[in-house]
Amino acid sequence: MENIDTAIAAAIENYHELNAAVVDELVEEPSPLEFMQFVSRNRPFVVRKAASDWDALKHWDAQYLRRVMGSEPVQVAVTPRGNADAVVEDENGQPLFVQPHETPEPFNEFLDYVHQDTQCPPEQQNGRNVKYAQTRTSISPPSPIHLFDDLPENDNLREEYYSLLPDIPESIPFARLALEKEPDAINLWIGNERSVTALHKDNYENIYVQIRGQKHFVLLSPVEMPCVNEQLLEQARYVPEQESGKLVIERSEGGETLPFATWDPDEPGERTTPFSHLAKPLKATLEEGDMLYLPAMWYHKVSQTAGEEGFACAVNAWYDMEFAGGFWTANSFLRDVMGAASKVVKYPALQMSDER
Amino acid sequence: MENIDTAIAAAIENYHELNAAVVDELVEEPSPLEFMQFVSRNRPFVVRKAASDWDALKHWDAQYLRRVMGSEPVQVAVTPRGNADAVVEDENGQPLFVQPHETPEPFNEFLDYVHQDTQCPPEQQNGRNVKYAQTRTSISPPSPIHLFDDLPENDNLREEYYSLLPDIPESIPFARLALEKEPDAINLWIGNERSVTALHKDNYENIYVQIRGQKHFVLLSPVEMPCVNEQLLEQARYVPEQESGKLVIERSEGGETLPFATWDPDEPGERTTPFSHLAKPLKATLEEGDMLYLPAMWYHKVSQTAGEEGFACAVNAWYDMEFAGGFWTANSFLRDVMGAASKVVKYPALQMSDER
Ligand SMILES: O=C(O)CCC(=O)C(=O)O
Ligand SMILES: O=C(O)CCC(=O)C(=O)O
Repeated sequence: MENIDTAIAAAIENYHELNAAVVDELVEEPSPLEFMQFVSRNRPFVVRKAASDWDALKHWDAQYLRRVMGSEPVQVAVTPRGNADAVVEDENGQPLFVQPHETPEPFNEFLDYVHQDTQCPPEQQNGRNVKYAQTRTSISPPSPIHLFDDLPENDNLREEYYSLLPDIPESIPFARLALEKEPDAINLWIGNERSVTALHKDNYENIYVQIRGQKHFVLLSPVEMPCVNEQLLEQARYVPEQESGKLVIERSEGGETLPFATWDPDEPGERTTPFSHLAKPLKATLEEGDMLYLPAMWYHKVSQTAGEEGFACAVNAWYDMEFAGGFWTANSFLRDVMGAASKVVKYPALQMSDER
Repeated sequence: MENIDTAIAAAIENYHELNAAVVDELVEEPSPLEFMQFVSRNRPFVVRKAASDWDALKHWDAQYLRRVMGSEPVQVAVTPRGNADAVVEDENGQPLFVQPHETPEPFNEFLDYVHQDTQCPPEQQNGRNVKYAQTRTSISPPSPIHLFDDLPENDNLREEYYSLLPDIPESIPFARLALEKEPDAINLWIGNERSVTALHKDNYENIYVQIRGQKHFVLLSPVEMPCVNEQLLEQARYVPEQESGKLVIERSEGGETLPFATWDPDEPGERTTPFSHLAKPLKATLEEGDMLYLPAMWYHKVSQTAGEEGFACAVNAWYDMEFAGGFWTANSFLRDVMGAASKVVKYPALQMSDER
């Protein structure tokens, strides 16, 4: 090995040699043991039509949701361009991590808005805010120790969407039996194609089920971390201007920062690292009733297409990942080496006696 | 991260924070799912008395073995100090990887020799060769690709010890069901306390069962690779001198080399790397009937104590490890970074603008 960069590139290439750049498709839900084999390999899969029997799949049209949820207030993420929890450059081109404006709205009004928005011809969408009923994505903190005592604050399907919970099976048996735990959070996502979830990772095993419309996942394995150009970004938030209500970016007062992927697999030539070209993103589109196992620490960018009813809707369960064993450590090590490499002055390879 | 060494040390420390430095003990054989959970975490366990029902455990005394095996020729590893496949320094202090003198012997003569050897008072052992009926340990080649088409050449229990095979269960159901394969090799090991297997790793999931006597395992996780001082050693072999029969070291003609651990957890101050002091070896002693799951890529040093019958005897099964997923890649990356770090000229940390 000439140097650290060569080692990093070799790891990404080695991973691709040993793993196909496709998402496995299963014809039925895996057994707990089969699921554990995928968890062990940290590899995603899709089960087509896994949720065919779910009441959610049978019933969740606009009329039903309106009836059950009525004007119950739900938390809505509002952004100018469907970019909640995403990287936005400020006036000086400096990338910021910008959270959406979060505001409670009566559910039926929110659904009307999304519906109208979906009908609205693109040329009229300009200036129209985008709304997404979403669960704030969990952002991996630097140390797992920190995680043990704080559950994700979201878990919206067991809270504000509680009335819809009976339409979801009480548990996903293969996941419960294999992971030997209940999900830390069960989330509902309602939006349309104007909302895109930026590339990020979560420290959860994720079972994601599409109910209405489609979801389009772009996936990168944890080994591809060096490709995604994670940077410590200053945190900011969209806030409505007093008079116009127009959303403007406000930086966090304390100047808090957060490590976040700044490379976008759909703009592969922008904000690159020397390793971005080695990424081999996997793609999977979920149709109504399809289930995705999205393994812990995989980067995912998620976009969507509204269904017949004018919205896209999905449900997912987050199970705390396993920190014991070597997986978490291996990912931290890759991050640390990447961090160290970026600060090392690179010299040409020296002719030295080879000690190993 | 100041530099690569800090990242390597942090990985080892992080692993120890997340994993206890003890081998789990199970009260009974795991289910296939429970086994897969251990495989997934790449963590060892012991099941006490798991093999109580095995015919081998009931029958394998010296008399029985002599009767079944008679004077069938078996391959015996002969060394001056019980150091088969071990590091030996040449006259100039240069470490070599030395293989034993391998020679076929009638089984009953071999067993007599081991038995006498065990009785022999230590002061009379000097100059007396050590014999071990062992299976050459598999040495991890640098690339898994290479492995796919060559099975280990040993597998002695299905070959020379075939007559003893019926005393072993046809398969270990939890392992077969979880790994969905049959073992690549099933091995028998017969020796006494004069034989020690040097610290090394294998690219196999290993189910190891003690039948007679005791085995003492010292284990290091794959993350502790930087502690074990792997070096490219010249290969050599013990050969008997023409006249005296005395074993002398002969280097391989082609000067072949092999990467091998040169640090010994029982001599922690010798042949160290800057990371050796961070190792936390796990210890496990197997009594008759106990089973050890030794996960793939774990370093193990193995010593033994003869039982009442004057020998120690064990059986193990090697299952090909999983190369897909990120585990193999993570280990290769650690090795490559370690290799790169050892050739990098270290400069004091520079004050540079922090890019990440
Ligand atoms: O559905 C989305 O928009 C994002 C989903 C996601 O990030 C997750 O489930 O972790
Ligand atoms: O029993 C021994 O001496 C060594 C065992 C070993 O190295 C193995 O099973 O891989």
